[in-house]
Amino acid sequence: MTTKAESTRDKLVHEQKLKEGQSYTAAHLGKLTTLDQYPMFVPSLNREVRGKVFIQDLIATTGCELSMNKLPAGVTVPFSHSHKENEEVFIFIKGQGQMAIDADVFDVTEGSVVRLAPEAVRCLRNTGAEELYYICIQSKAGSLGQHTFDDGVKVDHQIDWR
Amino acid sequence: MTTKAESTRDKLVHEQKLKEGQSYTAAHLGKLTTLDQYPMFVPSLNREVRGKVFIQDLIATTGCELSMNKLPAGVTVPFSHSHKENEEVFIFIKGQGQMAIDADVFDVTEGSVVRLAPEAVRCLRNTGAEELYYICIQSKAGSLGQHTFDDGVKVDHQIDWR
Repeated sequence: MTTKAESTRDKLVHEQKLKEGQSYTAAHLGKLTTLDQYPMFVPSLNREVRGKVFIQDLIATTGCELSMNKLPAGVTVPFSHSHKENEEVFIFIKGQGQMAIDADVFDVTEGSVVRLAPEAVRCLRNTGAEELYYICIQSKAGSLGQHTFDDGVKVDHQIDWR
Repeated sequence: MTTKAESTRDKLVHEQKLKEGQSYTAAHLGKLTTLDQYPMFVPSLNREVRGKVFIQDLIATTGCELSMNKLPAGVTVPFSHSHKENEEVFIFIKGQGQMAIDADVFDVTEGSVVRLAPEAVRCLRNTGAEELYYICIQSKAGSLGQHTFDDGVKVDHQIDWR
């Protein structure tokens, strides 16, 4: 069943498809301040939330899922959670917050990056006067084979910038 | 052999370690405008560059590698590249740019998200008057099993926010 939130989001996402080719898909979510235009139905809360957009089905990623997030001032994520098989990485872009992981609580802000193993019990709150912006990446724990310069291949390619 | 760039970066990274527990590692890179404090030696260019920080060894990710990037106005990444086994996702946070992928060229800006298959030949340039900020995620193509709500588990957990 497609919920009303899903069909509204799908319509918005379709409108914002940027460009697609055989080897890539690009979309445009709009300015981070406008992230709450995307509704999302959350099963465990049995209600719609705003300010979190998942991109896996939007740009067809196969190695990770990620969400772009805007958490208003004064708001705490209303539940803690862990994962079954995915590692998560949080990247904080703007604002002030606190992460609670297992028995620890610590401050996060622009430039903070956090890796969480699947079993970590996690929650987040906005402790600032402004919105808190962050990106959350899910990938299968232990799945990365090689990376960085070991995986890249320099290619001679003439580009017609236009 | 550890290069001078690597040892400078390792010292900075060590100073900025935020917090570590059994199930997580957190670090703090500082404000995005200060990303060029981290030197990095690029083998294919045989020189040091500034404004790109990889985080895999910093927070010990096992499912993805990612870099935080600041590209100055007027600058084009000096080579095109593809990958062997990793998919890449680019997330644009601030500024104006263009991506060249295979024979296509298109504009990117705050809120643009792009998935690239390993074989995509890619390059990027800053077309704006300000710096271009983006995050680039590498994960093994096809490695994601399940995600989003299917992988999450709600946990009852009393948090002592402090």
